Amino acid sequence: MPVSLLTVERFVEFPVLGDMKHSYDRTKPSKPGKGPVVASSPAAPKRLVVLVSGSGTNLQALIDAIEAVGSAAYGAEIVAVGADRGGIAGLERAESVGLPTFVCRVQDHPTREEWDRALAEAVAAYEPDLVISAGFMKIVGKEFLARFGGRTVNTHPALLPSFPGAHGVRDALAYGAKVTGCTVHFVDDGVDTGPIIAQSVVEVRDEDHADGGAALHERIKEVERQLLVEVVGRLARHGYRIEGRKVSIP
Amino acid sequence: MPVSLLTVERFVEFPVLGDMKHSYDRTKPSKPGKGPVVASSPAAPKRLVVLVSGSGTNLQALIDAIEAVGSAAYGAEIVAVGADRGGIAGLERAESVGLPTFVCRVQDHPTREEWDRALAEAVAAYEPDLVISAGFMKIVGKEFLARFGGRTVNTHPALLPSFPGAHGVRDALAYGAKVTGCTVHFVDDGVDTGPIIAQSVVEVRDEDHADGGAALHERIKEVERQLLVEVVGRLARHGYRIEGRKVSIP
Repeated sequence: MPVSLLTVERFVEFPVLGDMKHSYDRTKPSKPGKGPVVASSPAAPKRLVVLVSGSGTNLQALIDAIEAVGSAAYGAEIVAVGADRGGIAGLERAESVGLPTFVCRVQDHPTREEWDRALAEAVAAYEPDLVISAGFMKIVGKEFLARFGGRTVNTHPALLPSFPGAHGVRDALAYGAKVTGCTVHFVDDGVDTGPIIAQSVVEVRDEDHADGGAALHERIKEVERQLLVEVVGRLARHGYRIEGRKVSIP
Repeated sequence: MPVSLLTVERFVEFPVLGDMKHSYDRTKPSKPGKGPVVASSPAAPKRLVVLVSGSGTNLQALIDAIEAVGSAAYGAEIVAVGADRGGIAGLERAESVGLPTFVCRVQDHPTREEWDRALAEAVAAYEPDLVISAGFMKIVGKEFLARFGGRTVNTHPALLPSFPGAHGVRDALAYGAKVTGCTVHFVDDGVDTGPIIAQSVVEVRDEDHADGGAALHERIKEVERQLLVEVVGRLARHGYRIEGRKVSIP
C-alpha cells in the first residue's frame, strides 16, 4: 500500500547495500499507539530543501518546472536552498527568485561529524518533506541520514550500480560502455548505493571518445534534469514506498 | 582504420579488465615481412562456429536470420555448432538444418586445461572467423583465448558492468534497478568483463518483482536475440577494431 510522504518521518533505519532482504513498511507506526500519518490535505505542496555545490542547473530545472505549472499542480515547493560553500551560481539562482538560502561549510566546523549535524539542523529548520541533493558534492553522514534517510534524493550521471563515484561519465567511456545514462536514487550511507527511484538511458557514440566525454556529459545532464523534475514531482504527488531496495511510486 | 576480420588472426594478446591503456592495431603484421591480411573477397561470408549449452534460441535466431537473407547478404554463415554436453535442443536445431555438430564435455578430459585445449582444437578444425558463445555456459580457458580471443562473442542478460555472472536478471531485480538489458561483448579471461560491442536496454516494471523475473528475462532474451543477430552481421560485414576496451565497427 502506498503511503503519504508525510509518513516518511517514521523512517528510522535505512537499507544499506547488500541488505536486500530488509523490508520497510512505512504504514506501520514506529511508536505504539500512533496510527499512520497522512497528509492533512492532498493538495498541499510538499516542502523541498535543495542542496547545491556548483552551478545549480538541476535546481534551476526544479525552479522552472514549479514556476511553469505552480507548486500545487507540481506537488512541491522549494522552501530553501543550502550549499556547502558560498559564492556559487546555485545560491545566486535561489536568491534571484527570492528563496531562502544557507551555507554550511565543512571548514567552519571542528569535525566532519559536527558539520554533518549542523547541516542536518540547517535543513531541519525548514521542515522539508524531501531533500534534493542537486549536484551537492559532499557525502552526508550518520546524523543527516538518521533525520533524512529515505527522503533525500540524489542524481548520478551513470546507470548505477555501474560507474559510481565522482567520475561516472569518464568511467563509462573508459570501460567502453555503449549505453550509460543517469540514476535518481535515495541517499544511503554508501557512495551512490541507495535504492533506485528512476533511471534514464543515454547512448554512447563513437565520437564521444574524441572529446573526453564532454558532449556525452551534456547529453546526460539534459536527461538528468528532466528525470529529476519528473521524479520529484511524482514522489511529491503520489508518495512512495521503499521495500528493501525496491522503490515504487503508485 | 578498420581492419578486415581476417586480420584478427594476428591478434596475440587480449586486453584484460583494467588494462585500459593497452591498444591493439591489428593492421600491423605480427611477424616481420608479412603485410596485413585482407579478405580475398569482400562478399565472402565469414565463418561462424556457434557454441551452445541448452535450448539454442540464440542459435536459432542466427540460423533464421541467415536463411532469411542468405549468407552473402548477412555476411556470415554458420559452419559448425559445438556444445559442452549432448542431448540438448541446441544440437537438434543444428542437425535439423544439416549443420555439423560436435560435443566437447569437461568430464571426458582429465583436467579443465585439457578440455579447454580440446574445445579450442574442435573449434579450430572449422576455421572460424568468429566464435559465437550463444548461451554456452562454460568459461573458456587460456588455450581457447590464445586462439580465439578478440573474436569470440558472448551475450549477457544485463547492462555490463552491472550484474555480471550467472544471475544477471535476478541480480538486477534484487538491486532494484529500473533499467537493465543485454550486452554483446568479446570474451576475455574474466567473467563477463570483455570489451563491449553493443548493449540494448529493457525497462524493469513494478510487476517484474512479482514473478521472480520470469517475464523480464523473456523480454531481455527477445532483445538479446535481435541484438546478437544484428551485431554478428555487422562484425562480419564491416570488420571491427578493439582499442583497449573500446570496440568500434566502421
